Amino acid sequence: MANYKIYIQYDGTRYKGWQRQRTTDQTIQGKIEAILTRRYGRTIEIDGSGRTDAGVHARGQVANFRIPEALCDGKAPEDVCDELLALFAEYLPEDIAVTEVRVASERFHSRLNVVKKTYVYRIWNAAYPNVFERKYMLHDTRHMDVEAMRQAAEYLLGKHDFAAFCGNAKMKKSTVRTIHEISIEEIGGEIRFTYTGNGFLQNMIRIVTGTLVDVGTGVYPPEHVAEILESKVRAEAGPTMPAQGLTLWEVVY
Amino acid sequence: MANYKIYIQYDGTRYKGWQRQRTTDQTIQGKIEAILTRRYGRTIEIDGSGRTDAGVHARGQVANFRIPEALCDGKAPEDVCDELLALFAEYLPEDIAVTEVRVASERFHSRLNVVKKTYVYRIWNAAYPNVFERKYMLHDTRHMDVEAMRQAAEYLLGKHDFAAFCGNAKMKKSTVRTIHEISIEEIGGEIRFTYTGNGFLQNMIRIVTGTLVDVGTGVYPPEHVAEILESKVRAEAGPTMPAQGLTLWEVVY
Repeated sequence: MANYKIYIQYDGTRYKGWQRQRTTDQTIQGKIEAILTRRYGRTIEIDGSGRTDAGVHARGQVANFRIPEALCDGKAPEDVCDELLALFAEYLPEDIAVTEVRVASERFHSRLNVVKKTYVYRIWNAAYPNVFERKYMLHDTRHMDVEAMRQAAEYLLGKHDFAAFCGNAKMKKSTVRTIHEISIEEIGGEIRFTYTGNGFLQNMIRIVTGTLVDVGTGVYPPEHVAEILESKVRAEAGPTMPAQGLTLWEVVY
Repeated sequence: MANYKIYIQYDGTRYKGWQRQRTTDQTIQGKIEAILTRRYGRTIEIDGSGRTDAGVHARGQVANFRIPEALCDGKAPEDVCDELLALFAEYLPEDIAVTEVRVASERFHSRLNVVKKTYVYRIWNAAYPNVFERKYMLHDTRHMDVEAMRQAAEYLLGKHDFAAFCGNAKMKKSTVRTIHEISIEEIGGEIRFTYTGNGFLQNMIRIVTGTLVDVGTGVYPPEHVAEILESKVRAEAGPTMPAQGLTLWEVVY
């Protein structure tokens, strides 16, 4: 059973998120598994690096799956990679693409082996809408103090209990995570928030961004973010930003 | 009557082109004029720098129009600019945006005063599809010899009769145009053709690109492009490339 690692891009607009669901076929995992299952005549399940929510995009999602050699017509795994790339290019809808297929080591697991992940939240901050990237950015015309947002972000760096920034009220496991880096860049009319960490809680990037935007628009000063973190209370933090602006950028192993 | 100059971006996918038509309201000019006419209570016509065909996009289309001062509630033209920008942001569909409104000199005419125009044709040349810019590039997986295309492009520079590259068989006016510059760049998996000239014939960029792609894929050698130009016969040149890959990039006055 060779173990295959794939890199996936998707425009999440039309989908109910990454994870397969019984009640809809509009999931990324479901679309990919359906193609593999049809091709190989038996159920092939894939493991993603993590879920993305409905409407969230990905530039560098990673997944892995195994195909029994008996189903590969005697092909070497490297040749199966080429076949898979062509298979996905032919059958995936135009808003999902597999950009690379590699043979992984036998023990590789796309979720368990993650070292760090990068997510990007993009806000289009001009008076007029962005026509070409409108589906990948949130349009918000309010003035934002980028320097204040950068100061606020400093309080979130490192290892903390991010319970105040967790969208899952019933979370029983640890809400401790480590954020390695937060950068806030102005690129033309765009404000781009880039987060790198060892993992993120449900809705965490969207809530952290909502909190930084609260700071940027003057709802509270940068220092208040330390108090929110300390409180561990979800209601203290800012709003959950819409999924549309969020992209899973890169997964590092 | 102040003369207003506007900069327009559009994703042309859903539209029948720039030019107003009686039989459809799905034109860019029509959408903009409808908003102005509704706001000012009388027909206001706009002049574009030139037409773009159905499905063609624009990053820097320019148009101008006049509004009688009597309709402006005593506002100075500079204040009317701000009002117009907000008006367009509110009422235009999400795939059309007016990015800037300026007061132009009284004699400014967006078509007659064009000094040069830049068009870009984008081909996505990787094995997998481009998810995020799929509507703005043509996906073509064939290997293309970029150096051969660059050599071929040299024959087209300068002032020539481009009759062989004109999509309008009944063209009665001059088919002489001047191309100042053609650049062909590889940007990641994209091959980007950038054309700057004093003006272009109907479908000219799409036919020139189709001809260069013929060279790139080995249909004929670069030198043959000189013969096509010389022939002045449309059938000698390559195919008209799909509208999807074409963007009006910039208009210089």
